[in-house]
Amino acid sequence: MTPAELTDRLRLMVITDRDSAAPRSIFDVVEEALDAGAPAIQLRDKDASALQLYEAGKALLPRVREVGALFFVNDRVDVALALGADGVHVGPNDLPVQILRAAVPDDFLIGASTDDPREARALVRDGASYIGCGTVYPTTTKTDAGEVLGLKGLLRVARAVAAPVLGIGGITPERAARVAETGASGVAVIQAVMGAPDVRQAVSALLAPWPRGA
Amino acid sequence: MTPAELTDRLRLMVITDRDSAAPRSIFDVVEEALDAGAPAIQLRDKDASALQLYEAGKALLPRVREVGALFFVNDRVDVALALGADGVHVGPNDLPVQILRAAVPDDFLIGASTDDPREARALVRDGASYIGCGTVYPTTTKTDAGEVLGLKGLLRVARAVAAPVLGIGGITPERAARVAETGASGVAVIQAVMGAPDVRQAVSALLAPWPRGA
Repeated sequence: MTPAELTDRLRLMVITDRDSAAPRSIFDVVEEALDAGAPAIQLRDKDASALQLYEAGKALLPRVREVGALFFVNDRVDVALALGADGVHVGPNDLPVQILRAAVPDDFLIGASTDDPREARALVRDGASYIGCGTVYPTTTKTDAGEVLGLKGLLRVARAVAAPVLGIGGITPERAARVAETGASGVAVIQAVMGAPDVRQAVSALLAPWPRGA
Repeated sequence: MTPAELTDRLRLMVITDRDSAAPRSIFDVVEEALDAGAPAIQLRDKDASALQLYEAGKALLPRVREVGALFFVNDRVDVALALGADGVHVGPNDLPVQILRAAVPDDFLIGASTDDPREARALVRDGASYIGCGTVYPTTTKTDAGEVLGLKGLLRVARAVAAPVLGIGGITPERAARVAETGASGVAVIQAVMGAPDVRQAVSALLAPWPRGA
């Protein structure tokens, strides 16, 4: 994948969350999100066993592949590799990026979370393919992304690295345009899509501010 | 490693458990167990993050290597591979053995848990290097090993496969001789070593009934 293609797919990353999706399943919500053009999905379930995560990934992946979206697994690189996913997303409590990079194929994508420009540079140097940066806005959904840093903090991280930077944390369709002005490549969302009354509308609105590339 | 060397190392697998080791650290207990000749260690901590597990493994591994013991990680094959461990042990809620076997190097060991002879054969066919079989005796330590099956159940599994079979569940130094009579290759223990007042004595006693091979 070219850097332009990667940046294009990372305009929007939809992160799964069973609680936010309820009473719908994450499968139903992801299905609708993909229909509406979501270019990247991240399977995340901190309470799931490896087997449950693997089974969920197996159920999601054919549909993700069908529309040419990217598929990431949170934390569990073993599950990601077993599934043939495009990559893994790791936070500060997961395996270090440098260690991971040495253990996976060259084209396997590694996303890493930080809200610090200096750490973002180090993570990219260590082999991160993109940076998840937040928390941009206060949020009720648990992430690894740390304290609220606002749009200015996101801007600083986006300027620090050439790799794609996705804003994360409390980003709604209404806020996406302001996030785009920071120079971030896109947004990663949990609640804004998983909890959306109208998933298709939410995805369209979240995608709207980002220039369509490759 | 030859099958004889593997069987020799699997006379005793010491599984770590922070609660059972307290107030000592698992590091102190493993150190003493290795001194007493424990030939295999399994790092297990279901509550640890990947980073915590990795850091614990990094701390344990040099000493394990020094004495030529084997080092396994429970569940997290990604952490095991990142550490350069000898293998992983998986239960019924972890990645399937067949999927794992396709994703790891040929000489990477995979242990799998079952109490059923037919399933043991299937697991070995799928690529399991050894079988953890229990629960042999009632136990208070949580394992993936299912209901109590007794020595006769262990004997049936030990007879079903050529691969090493380790009895697990409630095995004490006093019970080890009876377990050895089933034809099992060895025992895997948590409490009997992690919770032992005298770790060296416990390890020596647990090793006593097993013929020393390669």
